[in-house]
Amino acid sequence: MRSIKLTVAYDGTDFAGFQIQPNVDTIQGELETALPRVLGETVRIIGAGRTDSGVHALGQVVSFKTSATIPTSRLPAALNTVLPRDIAVLRAEEVAAGFSARHSATDKLYRYLICVGDTLSPFIRNYCWYLPRRLEVRSMQLAAKMLEGHHDFSAFCAARSDAKSKIRTLRSLRIYTLKDLVVIEAQAESFLYKMVRSIVGALVHVGRGSLSPTEIPDILQSCKRNKIGQIAPPQGLILWQVAYEGLCTDADMPGSIALTLPWGYDKISL
Amino acid sequence: MRSIKLTVAYDGTDFAGFQIQPNVDTIQGELETALPRVLGETVRIIGAGRTDSGVHALGQVVSFKTSATIPTSRLPAALNTVLPRDIAVLRAEEVAAGFSARHSATDKLYRYLICVGDTLSPFIRNYCWYLPRRLEVRSMQLAAKMLEGHHDFSAFCAARSDAKSKIRTLRSLRIYTLKDLVVIEAQAESFLYKMVRSIVGALVHVGRGSLSPTEIPDILQSCKRNKIGQIAPPQGLILWQVAYEGLCTDADMPGSIALTLPWGYDKISL
Repeated sequence: MRSIKLTVAYDGTDFAGFQIQPNVDTIQGELETALPRVLGETVRIIGAGRTDSGVHALGQVVSFKTSATIPTSRLPAALNTVLPRDIAVLRAEEVAAGFSARHSATDKLYRYLICVGDTLSPFIRNYCWYLPRRLEVRSMQLAAKMLEGHHDFSAFCAARSDAKSKIRTLRSLRIYTLKDLVVIEAQAESFLYKMVRSIVGALVHVGRGSLSPTEIPDILQSCKRNKIGQIAPPQGLILWQVAYEGLCTDADMPGSIALTLPWGYDKISL
Repeated sequence: MRSIKLTVAYDGTDFAGFQIQPNVDTIQGELETALPRVLGETVRIIGAGRTDSGVHALGQVVSFKTSATIPTSRLPAALNTVLPRDIAVLRAEEVAAGFSARHSATDKLYRYLICVGDTLSPFIRNYCWYLPRRLEVRSMQLAAKMLEGHHDFSAFCAARSDAKSKIRTLRSLRIYTLKDLVVIEAQAESFLYKMVRSIVGALVHVGRGSLSPTEIPDILQSCKRNKIGQIAPPQGLILWQVAYEGLCTDADMPGSIALTLPWGYDKISL
């Protein structure tokens, strides 16, 4: 049995999320349908992050075990032939037997894009939250600093998050602008259910002046998630990279895919 | 009556082309549905280029006359509120009474994108022709040089082109690579029906070695369109800019929209 790690990009627009469910199209479902056609046997995959409906990935990682003999180097091309074109396998690697895309991950990097311009480009409409209002980025950056670090994030996850502990270490939460985009970049070993989108919702609340950065510590302490405004919509969220021994720079990501923003934006770098 | 010029971007994926037709979604149809909701009167628009089904635009231009009193500067935001999100009005200007988006145009610039990489990014799948084979770009450039200038382009348009004269002046036909993209850039005052996609089809034929650049003059002279291989598919074609007094540089195009390629590519400049 070989253990295989795949790096996968997808446009999540038309999927009901990563995790397999009956009667809807999912990333896991498509991969688990494509893999037997290439391997000649059914496999169950483990994904590093269970992205929600409408959320995208440039560097999702999945792992599985197989007894098939196809050379690892041929897997991406073989899988891409049978996958729908909104999912692409960028890289395949053979890994140690104990490897799990989910449990072996040491870092995940998400980026969330907000377009604040007068006009929303049709070419990024599915990849950002369009908020044509002024956001006070400086305030958002102050609030972000208060969220970084080791906290109980109960106030910043979905009600139905079933994680036993809501304590996570948010290694980095950066905010910067790029033309008419506000980019929010979150890095942690693991995130709670809807944690990034909850944080983005709260930061937008701050950016609009309806929440003060100084209220963030109290909200963290309260563990009540009714104080942070709406959860940000899914289409702005992109699982950018999953790392197993530290994040690489964008330039080292696989393939030529997906390191800059579409249609009118310069490169964003790690 | 004011004469108004609108600059419009659209993702053509889900439209049956620019020109209005019964029972299908078209760019003209959407604009002529949106305009009365803003102007309070029906108008008929003229488009600079009748892009086909699946073809995109970053800088399509349309013109119309109206007796409505809404300030010109408020038109983009008002129209974008009622238009579907795959169409965006980037700019509105009042122009001289005789202005026609179509007949006053002095230059059109199309770019056609071919992805030749090992993997097709899900994020550009609707904006390029995916040809994961080696293309001899140097041969394509030689062939392009022979197509530039004043010629009868009967061999390079669709059979049902009903233009009286098939003589056009192709001011410039450039080909260059950008990571795993081959970009073909065509500039002329006007083009025949499916002329750019016919030219791209022929250039790909050359790039694959099934047609020699030296055969191009004979094909032009033959006026027969059965020698140039397939017409390139629509999704790689983008109406980039329409000019009325010479093309502007990409940096001067309206809004912050759409001057570079999506997800992983650097800026392409005019």
